[in-house]
Amino acid sequence: MFVLGVDPGLSRCGYCVLASDGRTSKPVALGVLRTSPSEPTPRRLAELMGDVGALLGEYSPDAVAIERVLFQVNVRTAMSVGQAAGVVMAQAASRGVEVAEYSPNEVKGAVAGFGAADKAQVQRMVQLLLELPAPPSPADAADAAAVALAHVAVSGGSIPGRVLASGSGTNR
Amino acid sequence: MFVLGVDPGLSRCGYCVLASDGRTSKPVALGVLRTSPSEPTPRRLAELMGDVGALLGEYSPDAVAIERVLFQVNVRTAMSVGQAAGVVMAQAASRGVEVAEYSPNEVKGAVAGFGAADKAQVQRMVQLLLELPAPPSPADAADAAAVALAHVAVSGGSIPGRVLASGSGTNR
Repeated sequence: MFVLGVDPGLSRCGYCVLASDGRTSKPVALGVLRTSPSEPTPRRLAELMGDVGALLGEYSPDAVAIERVLFQVNVRTAMSVGQAAGVVMAQAASRGVEVAEYSPNEVKGAVAGFGAADKAQVQRMVQLLLELPAPPSPADAADAAAVALAHVAVSGGSIPGRVLASGSGTNR
Repeated sequence: MFVLGVDPGLSRCGYCVLASDGRTSKPVALGVLRTSPSEPTPRRLAELMGDVGALLGEYSPDAVAIERVLFQVNVRTAMSVGQAAGVVMAQAASRGVEVAEYSPNEVKGAVAGFGAADKAQVQRMVQLLLELPAPPSPADAADAAAVALAHVAVSGGSIPGRVLASGSGTNR
């Protein structure tokens, strides 16, 4: 299965496309969608909508996993993050792609084993689970990878009819 | 000029298309876009995205005026309202339509003359300005009409090259 993990944001929106066969997951694409703070908000949201549409078109993920925005953390940026998340969810759902939301604690619990894990612990677990030489960079992309991994863990990670190129030699 | 006023919301999103020649404004379309609370949020946002796209396609407004979401008012619904507003703004901007945001106090100040006006006062002024037999109903549509009127007041109301059918007899 292909999962597009998203750490929503207007200035920086982390994304990670994971290919997973249920046991191992590999990042297929990873990065950050940026929009300029000097542009008007509607223009930036439109850019994000286009960029997310391009990712969905290029990778045809089976699901989009997105981190749920919490008010309490940062009231000043929560509104723009919420607007960005709304755009991402609408784009995915309008293309018929399943969307799952995960709270930060659900992500930490699924990836690091406990909901109170700190950012560095989550990033080390992401590195370990994806067998990378270093934690994904930048941090927003690593957070997106963590959300995608959480979805793989929760959903069981495999969808019939989707076979990974790297999934050979497992039939014993 | 045509202005699409929007009172954003996920369950109920008020809209009003105003035709204005700078002196008088007439509602051309007015109503509420609804999505079902029993549907998943991403599905509802996708529906809203489609409905707003249809309005933009049908009326080709010169501008979209949208009420700015404030956190303080209702924290419980602010996030879904913010997501809805994000979808509306992205849709408009992606079609090249100018988007203007107005705070509730800016709307009240422009329509009723003072920012502390109550809801009933704003609705009576909307009725008066649009020469309607009663305040627009439902309330979300009236709020959308107020935002559109605020934009007309702020922007001067006329854009060259756009002539109202009702704009005759003014050339003296």
